[in-house]
Amino acid sequence: MKKLIKGLRDFKTNYFSTHTELFEQLAHGQKPRVLFISCSDSRVDPNLITQTEIGELFVIRNAGNIIPPYGAANGGEGAAVEYAIHALGIEQIVVCGHSHCGAMKGLLQLDKLQEEMPLVYDWLKHAEATRRLIKENYKSYQTEELLEIAIAENVLTQIENLRTYPVVHSRMYQGKLKIYGWIYHLETGEVLAYDPDSHSYVHPQSQLGEYDPLDGPVAGEFTVSNAPPPPIA
Amino acid sequence: MKKLIKGLRDFKTNYFSTHTELFEQLAHGQKPRVLFISCSDSRVDPNLITQTEIGELFVIRNAGNIIPPYGAANGGEGAAVEYAIHALGIEQIVVCGHSHCGAMKGLLQLDKLQEEMPLVYDWLKHAEATRRLIKENYKSYQTEELLEIAIAENVLTQIENLRTYPVVHSRMYQGKLKIYGWIYHLETGEVLAYDPDSHSYVHPQSQLGEYDPLDGPVAGEFTVSNAPPPPIA
Amino acid sequence: MKKLIKGLRDFKTNYFSTHTELFEQLAHGQKPRVLFISCSDSRVDPNLITQTEIGELFVIRNAGNIIPPYGAANGGEGAAVEYAIHALGIEQIVVCGHSHCGAMKGLLQLDKLQEEMPLVYDWLKHAEATRRLIKENYKSYQTEELLEIAIAENVLTQIENLRTYPVVHSRMYQGKLKIYGWIYHLETGEVLAYDPDSHSYVHPQSQLGEYDPLDGPVAGEFTVSNAPPPPIA
Amino acid sequence: MKKLIKGLRDFKTNYFSTHTELFEQLAHGQKPRVLFISCSDSRVDPNLITQTEIGELFVIRNAGNIIPPYGAANGGEGAAVEYAIHALGIEQIVVCGHSHCGAMKGLLQLDKLQEEMPLVYDWLKHAEATRRLIKENYKSYQTEELLEIAIAENVLTQIENLRTYPVVHSRMYQGKLKIYGWIYHLETGEVLAYDPDSHSYVHPQSQLGEYDPLDGPVAGEFTVSNAPPPPIA
Amino acid sequence: MKKLIKGLRDFKTNYFSTHTELFEQLAHGQKPRVLFISCSDSRVDPNLITQTEIGELFVIRNAGNIIPPYGAANGGEGAAVEYAIHALGIEQIVVCGHSHCGAMKGLLQLDKLQEEMPLVYDWLKHAEATRRLIKENYKSYQTEELLEIAIAENVLTQIENLRTYPVVHSRMYQGKLKIYGWIYHLETGEVLAYDPDSHSYVHPQSQLGEYDPLDGPVAGEFTVSNAPPPPIA
Amino acid sequence: MKKLIKGLRDFKTNYFSTHTELFEQLAHGQKPRVLFISCSDSRVDPNLITQTEIGELFVIRNAGNIIPPYGAANGGEGAAVEYAIHALGIEQIVVCGHSHCGAMKGLLQLDKLQEEMPLVYDWLKHAEATRRLIKENYKSYQTEELLEIAIAENVLTQIENLRTYPVVHSRMYQGKLKIYGWIYHLETGEVLAYDPDSHSYVHPQSQLGEYDPLDGPVAGEFTVSNAPPPPIA
Ligand SMILES: [Zn+2]
Ligand SMILES: [Zn+2]
Ligand SMILES: [Zn+2]
Ligand SMILES: [Zn+2]
Ligand SMILES: [Zn+2]
Ligand SMILES: [Zn+2]
Repeated sequence: MKKLIKGLRDFKTNYFSTHTELFEQLAHGQKPRVLFISCSDSRVDPNLITQTEIGELFVIRNAGNIIPPYGAANGGEGAAVEYAIHALGIEQIVVCGHSHCGAMKGLLQLDKLQEEMPLVYDWLKHAEATRRLIKENYKSYQTEELLEIAIAENVLTQIENLRTYPVVHSRMYQGKLKIYGWIYHLETGEVLAYDPDSHSYVHPQSQLGEYDPLDGPVAGEFTVSNAPPPPIA
Repeated sequence: MKKLIKGLRDFKTNYFSTHTELFEQLAHGQKPRVLFISCSDSRVDPNLITQTEIGELFVIRNAGNIIPPYGAANGGEGAAVEYAIHALGIEQIVVCGHSHCGAMKGLLQLDKLQEEMPLVYDWLKHAEATRRLIKENYKSYQTEELLEIAIAENVLTQIENLRTYPVVHSRMYQGKLKIYGWIYHLETGEVLAYDPDSHSYVHPQSQLGEYDPLDGPVAGEFTVSNAPPPPIA
Repeated sequence: MKKLIKGLRDFKTNYFSTHTELFEQLAHGQKPRVLFISCSDSRVDPNLITQTEIGELFVIRNAGNIIPPYGAANGGEGAAVEYAIHALGIEQIVVCGHSHCGAMKGLLQLDKLQEEMPLVYDWLKHAEATRRLIKENYKSYQTEELLEIAIAENVLTQIENLRTYPVVHSRMYQGKLKIYGWIYHLETGEVLAYDPDSHSYVHPQSQLGEYDPLDGPVAGEFTVSNAPPPPIA
Repeated sequence: MKKLIKGLRDFKTNYFSTHTELFEQLAHGQKPRVLFISCSDSRVDPNLITQTEIGELFVIRNAGNIIPPYGAANGGEGAAVEYAIHALGIEQIVVCGHSHCGAMKGLLQLDKLQEEMPLVYDWLKHAEATRRLIKENYKSYQTEELLEIAIAENVLTQIENLRTYPVVHSRMYQGKLKIYGWIYHLETGEVLAYDPDSHSYVHPQSQLGEYDPLDGPVAGEFTVSNAPPPPIA
Repeated sequence: MKKLIKGLRDFKTNYFSTHTELFEQLAHGQKPRVLFISCSDSRVDPNLITQTEIGELFVIRNAGNIIPPYGAANGGEGAAVEYAIHALGIEQIVVCGHSHCGAMKGLLQLDKLQEEMPLVYDWLKHAEATRRLIKENYKSYQTEELLEIAIAENVLTQIENLRTYPVVHSRMYQGKLKIYGWIYHLETGEVLAYDPDSHSYVHPQSQLGEYDPLDGPVAGEFTVSNAPPPPIA
Repeated sequence: MKKLIKGLRDFKTNYFSTHTELFEQLAHGQKPRVLFISCSDSRVDPNLITQTEIGELFVIRNAGNIIPPYGAANGGEGAAVEYAIHALGIEQIVVCGHSHCGAMKGLLQLDKLQEEMPLVYDWLKHAEATRRLIKENYKSYQTEELLEIAIAENVLTQIENLRTYPVVHSRMYQGKLKIYGWIYHLETGEVLAYDPDSHSYVHPQSQLGEYDPLDGPVAGEFTVSNAPPPPIA
């Protein structure tokens, strides 16, 4: 705790005092451009990995970057989504999973959680669509591969769930809301983005049309669809 | 979005490449020391204001830094609390409110939310203890003061709620878990911490016994109990 | 009631006695090919409008042909969807709305329901995504047009909801499940089917590649997208 | 799907075109006389077995013809019951079970469902009163007999549940609502009706005072009370 | 509080010391014969009005002597009913309403509760069947009469609700459980019991066949059915 | 039942006729001073053990004297708490556990309840904080000791839960509400009260400053904290 409290002082002395104008402006209201949904995991820092300033990201963080379907939960997720879109006018959502996610590990061994961590067990029901997909389609896979697939598929599951929210539904209908699926690989510092056309995770730059192939092939680039048998519908 | 994607590259090129050892180590597992519960508000960046490195804070973020009482919600809050304490062995929790909080503004005008943001409306039921306290005890106060009081009291409400969780209850019984209440004032860059003895928010340094009075009186130091009429039980 | 009881006898004497082989076979188990989801409305008879025999359609009927998102309700809808797909191996789902739907009329005047029909009011929360879309995008429309649009959009809302079910999610991933959106116009006896490519409701025959243009233009063909302003994302 | 789409055309060409007057009239509003609650099973077609026209039956269909007690579920069942009675003024309800019901088979082997069909498992909680009755009172019975008894008792359980709905309670108090319990035997094409006086299922004709004993004894007539030991209270 | 604490000492000194044998025996286990469900109201003391000893009544007390239908609530009511019947083998249940009941007064002015006592408001949903019955059938009655009718009808509503519990359903099927409806009139010290045959509240003695008519007519005897218009179904 | 009905007559003839003034006064409204929360157990009679008259205690009774956290249940507990404080202005709450409590026995063998008494099983989730505390901190204790500790700790758990209710929170803030934890030992007729300072259960007289040490040491006085290892936070 001492470290944190010392950090508070450093923040004020160093960072804050050199950004007074920004903070003054922010005191009049926030105008974030992106709703960023990520895991509570201490190794995921949304502002750090996107190198964004304070004021740029409206952030939801929970175990497993999960957004239950509309009406399925009365926790903070739905309220924050609604506030982000309706009150703040946010038009871009990123659902960001990450490698080595403990919540997804738990999802793959759900039975072990029930006695020791019943609330985690219950919470992961909202990722049951991910679990069932893995269980029914990846029977012969190794633990490590399964984890990678679960992480990647869960981002897509949560995007489906997001689409059931009235505010999301209405804004997407207007063409005014975009949802992105990302995976942050903490061992490489790399983020890959879901590409609906190829049903694979690719360099996000390539989606902006500014990807430079000279960067070469990406180690650990994740193609969901290379996992037999299931061609994605 | 372009800005974010460019940020991802900057992060990898600059930050990641200069911290490879840290990231390698973190890839083997996280060991955060603190569960940090804060608002989704884009102006609150837990790692920034505490000047902590990646890997140090396990973070829950939702609208209003609310933790519903145990059993009252099936959102991500309870699961993350349980995971933090049981799976990660975290022994310190910070509930961090902040000035100008939109969720707390909403709480003070709850009726206006029902039609436009029904999920926010429902979510704020978990801060009803704050709302009722304000309503019954601060009738003659101005909007701005009420907001400050609501922010300060809500941190205490959520700490009460936290105490109903079985994992919290058991660890507190063992004397192995501490819960801190903070308020981040974004216009001054200052964080004040709740002091149960004086029932007021004070410099957190003073709680560590290392507060230097030469810093002078704190502008905006918040004393809940200076609000008449109610002496705190 | 006398009429119904007389009908039971007629059924046995006439229909049953001339289909004994079919019933004998069905007594060994059902093998329906389609899960048909329609309104409880007495004017909608799934077997009649599809001219299917007994044994061909597994049927869910409720007010408004609504399927709440996964986890959002503990009524019979989810169980029947799960049973249809997992136990019966059904690979085709039809969500069938209908013109003059009382539930959709109720959705457009929701406030009037709360006192007199509170359960209907609560139930229609699962069509809130439809209501919000209509409210935010069709402000200047007439009641009758609004009803048509609500009926058409609600079918799409419920298809989104269906996609959040684990069994649906997994089977769609395998490419083994198709979901169709229909609207039955009871004043013309016509059924139109949603065409995702054109985002409009068209003759279902045209989707099978066997549509005969000599049939001429369809009176009442419903194009969701001809409603300004919102181009569908 | 081709078959269904061809059926739609046949329906319009044949049935609709010969009933235009009826459909025209129905376009102005439905006036069904009966709320018919039956299983989703493809072998149960309410209009067929009662030989009723379109417009006569308001229909709820789910797995197991279950109506959860008032307040116990937020699915479509309660809303449809409320709409039928309050909005449509329906004064007769039929709860119609059927032989070989898969939902009732599931109820008798509930534990097997939890992993594979968790939603069906949860849904059958609303038939727990049936399950407990069977379990505590029919220990030595064979599987097939148990299934028949479960089907018969479940109809009565659901009628008890129906009575807890405010609209039902109030209308029964006025003597303006009647609830009937039926079982459809799909191997004989026969429907038997529950007779509260004898606590057995009998020919529905006999209840109307027009039963002709020359029809002889009914094969498969089901007497709940012939099952020892429990005399019904 | 002083009074209570003094009372504790008096209890031990006087009552306990003269009943040591009873308490010794009870320390080995309770064997109550009756489950008594009454209001939390301080003027209702189940043991006092039935002149029963300690150990004779298993007691549920809440605002309004309400038992929500099975599955409709997760409060203590269902658990206590289940424990009484299954663990203790209780075969008699009394649902005891009382005159001047504040909960029933609240039920008749439900809207006034929502802001000030939202939990009471929500709780009274489980007496909605009573409220709707009153509202639809007693439009022209005076407040005081309405209250009496509400109290009397609510006892019957809760008995209906009780019947939906699996343990109740199964035991009633065996003929091993009886449910009684009582109303305690605190201004006369009299209890009347519901008589299903006459649909009225009568001297409970008369139900045991030991009623002495010399007692004369009962002031305040309550006949539900003398309230026009509705003959009870 | 005969005994009860005879008791009703005795009550009227004896008790009521000698307290007519009290009852007349009470007919105009109740003014209880204390909300008394105790177990449904037939051996616990709140009025008897406190030697209070009718009209003095507002009583909640359920299995295990449990008050779920605010928002965690929709049973009668929260409504009665709210009514007691807001409508009746009660300023003192007693949570009274008791020795040999069957609900607490169940809590210590929770798994055995799931099949036979599922509602009790679910209900005891609201005492999970007690169960987890016991399980994690009293591994080597004997059954009987565990039961005593569970009973004592559960009273404290429920007091924590009570504090999350908005009405409780607001009144405690005003210093106008006090909560007491008691344990009634039915084999000695003694009640001990929780003393926060010593974290032990003591003679309630001692808390009033009128405890006479000549009474000598109390057999069975219960010190929670004498149970190693956990010093209470
Ligand atoms: Zn994670
Ligand atoms: Zn905020
Ligand atoms: Zn309809
Ligand atoms: Zn069936
Ligand atoms: Zn009362
Ligand atoms: Zn007990």
